Amino acid sequence: MRSIDWQDGHLVAIDQTKLPGELVLVEIHTVVDLIDAIKRLAIRGAPALGAAGALGAAMAVRAGGDVGAAVAALRAARPTAVNLAWGVDQAMAHQDEGADAVLAEAIAILDADAVRNRALGERGAAWLAEHVPGPVVVQTHCNAGALACVEWGTALGVVRSLHERDRLGHVYVDETRPLLQGSRLTSWELTEMGIDHTVIVDSAAATVLARGLADAVVVGADRITANGDVVNKIGTYPLALAAQRSGRPFVVAAPESTIDATLASGDEVEIEVRDPVEVLAIGGLPGTATLNYAFDVTPADLVTAIVTEERVIRPALGERPA
Amino acid sequence: MRSIDWQDGHLVAIDQTKLPGELVLVEIHTVVDLIDAIKRLAIRGAPALGAAGALGAAMAVRAGGDVGAAVAALRAARPTAVNLAWGVDQAMAHQDEGADAVLAEAIAILDADAVRNRALGERGAAWLAEHVPGPVVVQTHCNAGALACVEWGTALGVVRSLHERDRLGHVYVDETRPLLQGSRLTSWELTEMGIDHTVIVDSAAATVLARGLADAVVVGADRITANGDVVNKIGTYPLALAAQRSGRPFVVAAPESTIDATLASGDEVEIEVRDPVEVLAIGGLPGTATLNYAFDVTPADLVTAIVTEERVIRPALGERPA
Repeated sequence: MRSIDWQDGHLVAIDQTKLPGELVLVEIHTVVDLIDAIKRLAIRGAPALGAAGALGAAMAVRAGGDVGAAVAALRAARPTAVNLAWGVDQAMAHQDEGADAVLAEAIAILDADAVRNRALGERGAAWLAEHVPGPVVVQTHCNAGALACVEWGTALGVVRSLHERDRLGHVYVDETRPLLQGSRLTSWELTEMGIDHTVIVDSAAATVLARGLADAVVVGADRITANGDVVNKIGTYPLALAAQRSGRPFVVAAPESTIDATLASGDEVEIEVRDPVEVLAIGGLPGTATLNYAFDVTPADLVTAIVTEERVIRPALGERPA
Repeated sequence: MRSIDWQDGHLVAIDQTKLPGELVLVEIHTVVDLIDAIKRLAIRGAPALGAAGALGAAMAVRAGGDVGAAVAALRAARPTAVNLAWGVDQAMAHQDEGADAVLAEAIAILDADAVRNRALGERGAAWLAEHVPGPVVVQTHCNAGALACVEWGTALGVVRSLHERDRLGHVYVDETRPLLQGSRLTSWELTEMGIDHTVIVDSAAATVLARGLADAVVVGADRITANGDVVNKIGTYPLALAAQRSGRPFVVAAPESTIDATLASGDEVEIEVRDPVEVLAIGGLPGTATLNYAFDVTPADLVTAIVTEERVIRPALGERPA
């Protein structure tokens, strides 16, 4: 089953806000409903947002009316991940050919996602198998699994490929506050795959690395700038600091579409700030000020390797993705 | 009001599991009940545990019976903070003089705590005022406030003293998963004091530092080893890595009783591992494995200054506390 798909003339996706308690599908017929699903994170994850953007563009063109306004609103539903706008633009490039052509391009993007992620997973697993002796214990953050994509996953795609090669030791999963994509989604996916894993609070990850319990950090990305800075879920940057201190590789698994050659560095990326209630809902005093950054920037010098479906880039050695 | 006190022949303390929703006092008459209160973190915080240990020793001696077994169980209620055992031992040193002398020593420890913390707070505020120009924006973790002590606080004592000097800019408070001592307790204390603050998820602290929003990190400690390694709430170590990367001072505020000269380094400290339910209660799949370290070790080279009631030690410059 795909996390996001086109069925019977509309978009169908797993509602990621309901996991791990319930596996519920959400059916989306309009761009307005799609924007709502993206904003409330029912659909999330950089590659899945690319697919959603493409399918949303197809819905907008099929619906007619002010298509330009609809796709502009869709592109802006979440500002940080580059893939959403990329998916919209890829599909809209076929607008002159008519609604069927836009939809065909969107479906081609979905089909390509699984192929890309398998290639990316294999490349990442090969890289880790070469650089880490014996079973590889992976530390990951947030959810860069099948749920974040159409199928297979990026960072968790690497984990799957290691598992298939019988080279996976164990997985440490950061819970990923505030929305718990690690303990809710990644843990659920790993359980479904029968992969042994341990959930930790985000701030314990540095200790897991310092104690030599994990061999490598593997995460996804929402945007990678030309110099190799990596924008990903809040908490990725301190994980990279901890990996560097412990002499462990920090590996980013992301498709080529995540690389934004138009931005020189992470300083130029707009970081989404989300609602205080996400932070305060457990324990907090209502009305307290928060600063709920959804993402952070990991400087290129901390990034050992970026693995895409096409290549391995080593920013820490001065290699640039664009 | 003191967070922990001796009133009418028994121990009275604020139940810290009930804040910020309710301000409830817990009344404790036996060592068994005290151990329970410590284990479930109704009483917590290194200096408060010192006071609890001393008052518990007094209760044990007053109750008679197998005093040795009672105080041994009390000393072991939580393994990581040195202050608990220190408080027990300070009071028990007067056992030969009788129950009244043990109680008198325990009460003297409580009285001294406030005096010590004020001195510590003043010294820390003076250090920060000297090293940071203008209003000082402090990033803190967990709760090292009055609730963690008898009165005044250690890290938050420094914040209070800065506030009194009109040199405090703002406070960023890490929520401190899994038990939220930051968003529940520190935020409550700062609100009571009328001090402006912002609550963030723990993994956003590195970004707050990277963006230049905070001038210094100020935390408490549960144990400081002879070489200057600092054992404190899980999440302190990555905060120190982030402070170093951003060129901001990492300051530890703790009384001399936190320094354990018998241990050469943090490698020798027993790190408490707590119940999975603390991690999994929100979002997690029941039955999932966790590794719920309650504390971590910040290596001495990352510690800019340790401020006690008597002195400032600079481990990053090679100075040793013992």
